[in-house]
Amino acid sequence: MQKVHITASHSYDVLIGPGLISKAGEYISSVSKPCRAAIITDDTVAALYGAQVKESLKHAGFTADLWAFPHGEQHKTMTTLAAALEWLGETGVSRSDLIVALGGGVPGDLAGFAAAVYCRGMRFAQIPTTLLAAVDSSVGGKTAVDLSSGKNMAGAFHQPDIVLCDTDVLGRLPADLLRDGSAEMLKYGMLVDEKLFDDLSSGAWKGRIEETVARCVAIKQDYVVQDEEDQGVRQFLNLGHTFGHAAEKCSGFTLTHGQGVGMGLMMASRAAGIDTEPVRRALLACDLTPECPYDAAQLAQAAYSDKKRKGGKITLVLPEKIGKCTLKTISVEELPCYFAKGMGETI
Amino acid sequence: MQKVHITASHSYDVLIGPGLISKAGEYISSVSKPCRAAIITDDTVAALYGAQVKESLKHAGFTADLWAFPHGEQHKTMTTLAAALEWLGETGVSRSDLIVALGGGVPGDLAGFAAAVYCRGMRFAQIPTTLLAAVDSSVGGKTAVDLSSGKNMAGAFHQPDIVLCDTDVLGRLPADLLRDGSAEMLKYGMLVDEKLFDDLSSGAWKGRIEETVARCVAIKQDYVVQDEEDQGVRQFLNLGHTFGHAAEKCSGFTLTHGQGVGMGLMMASRAAGIDTEPVRRALLACDLTPECPYDAAQLAQAAYSDKKRKGGKITLVLPEKIGKCTLKTISVEELPCYFAKGMGETI
Repeated sequence: MQKVHITASHSYDVLIGPGLISKAGEYISSVSKPCRAAIITDDTVAALYGAQVKESLKHAGFTADLWAFPHGEQHKTMTTLAAALEWLGETGVSRSDLIVALGGGVPGDLAGFAAAVYCRGMRFAQIPTTLLAAVDSSVGGKTAVDLSSGKNMAGAFHQPDIVLCDTDVLGRLPADLLRDGSAEMLKYGMLVDEKLFDDLSSGAWKGRIEETVARCVAIKQDYVVQDEEDQGVRQFLNLGHTFGHAAEKCSGFTLTHGQGVGMGLMMASRAAGIDTEPVRRALLACDLTPECPYDAAQLAQAAYSDKKRKGGKITLVLPEKIGKCTLKTISVEELPCYFAKGMGETI
Repeated sequence: MQKVHITASHSYDVLIGPGLISKAGEYISSVSKPCRAAIITDDTVAALYGAQVKESLKHAGFTADLWAFPHGEQHKTMTTLAAALEWLGETGVSRSDLIVALGGGVPGDLAGFAAAVYCRGMRFAQIPTTLLAAVDSSVGGKTAVDLSSGKNMAGAFHQPDIVLCDTDVLGRLPADLLRDGSAEMLKYGMLVDEKLFDDLSSGAWKGRIEETVARCVAIKQDYVVQDEEDQGVRQFLNLGHTFGHAAEKCSGFTLTHGQGVGMGLMMASRAAGIDTEPVRRALLACDLTPECPYDAAQLAQAAYSDKKRKGGKITLVLPEKIGKCTLKTISVEELPCYFAKGMGETI
């Protein structure tokens, strides 16, 4: 088992290893005396792991309750959040109890947000069940739901008390969920770790999931610890995201986040003027499509309303080489130019 | 004009004086360069002060938009919060803009909560228009909505950037809103300030609203600064509240919060065994009813589900004398006994 200690306003451990789900109660009891543990998840994950987590919590002396909402990003809404909060209230969950966020990015973001606001802030344990959640959304304390005007437009910064990444669960993931996670992992490689990038390009990482996930979590932690509320260096973690979000938006979100980020890494590399061939090879090795099917004008329009825009400015993350990137703040008016470069269009 | 500097995780000033509403834009521009200012209020307050605040903001260079929801505690819900957030999104409010929470406790709590979660946290200005909001809910960063299971069950700690208390507005308040505010003011007097208590008993405070409000804000600030997230000494601010909430609950919330707190101050004094005569006189002078119409058993039952209970324990605030109180942690099983004492019933 690997352990990454996260130092934030509130410190906690991310544990990564086999069989953690069936021992969830035991590990959670290392950060909380027995109390009521309220598991929030979606129906898919509830069917796969709900009973196991509940049993394990009961075995460790917790009173365990579970609430599941229908799976899918379309349910990451204020309506589902309100239903989750009402359930917590009806179940009699009190401020000294604990919430368990079980699942991929959607249940993780929603349950984390519920934990952030129920009784103005509850302790919570996070059990990511997708690779994307394990390497990205379960680290850093960002929780959210979507609004009509955009993804993750309402949320809170709220750190968990413990994160349990069960590598057996990750090993059983279908190809599309592995692919989505590997886009974020490639991002970490491009940001600071050429070896990680190479491992993903060669597929070697699949033989050492535990170490690779731990490395990604540690990289994210390095950024988060410096900038918990996303005002400075944490912006590096947006590598591929301004471009990628635009592609996701143009597709009406039929492209997954991972697919968008994959295309975004390619666009960012091309916009920065580095050799894109290694990036293309790495994306293909991870079963990701390098080229985006939309043109620069469509993408720039979609990016325009990106919430990271600040007073007419957008900060782009541009690779200098694999393992080193730089921040570049541009005015909104320059966006089409960068998208044209990113798509290899002549201006 | 009086100014109280609040030192919290995020420091800000509470300004108290005449005519502040019509100069809102000017004061807000001292903490924010011109941007989009999104005013959230209720329909009653919008009709009284909406245009004035909007004009003042525009005059100071802000783009001002206003959204009002139907007045009343029954609208302090997740549904209204979701509508407010959707409005912010549609209006194109971005992370670098500003929210203005205009109104009494309900709009203040709701708009503050919206500010806490929109884009994971926005800057906001608070303009309390009731005495209760001025002396209590606008200081300390507690924001919330109600759930079916209880009042203020979902919310966030989020500090404003500036608070503007217009004493002209307070001076025009109808009797019932003055009464609600004075219950909290009496509480501050009983906690630490015998002179404040005497001023309220004699009615002398009405001749110096500005100083009195400033004194109350300063007292609350002293507690909040020591304990922003309500884990320790801030519990003193619950004086009269465990008893009072129970009375409110028994009435199906036909008793206002101020009326409940007034009765709660009487019950707390009697439970503590101090001379209740000065408390009764002060309550009557403030147009509050000292005696609660419910019996101890009903009240204890209502208090049982109080969210401040922690693992079977409740912390009561008991007066030793006017101006000095003490915390007493009791087990839930002892509650009926304290309510019996509080109601002067023999056990």
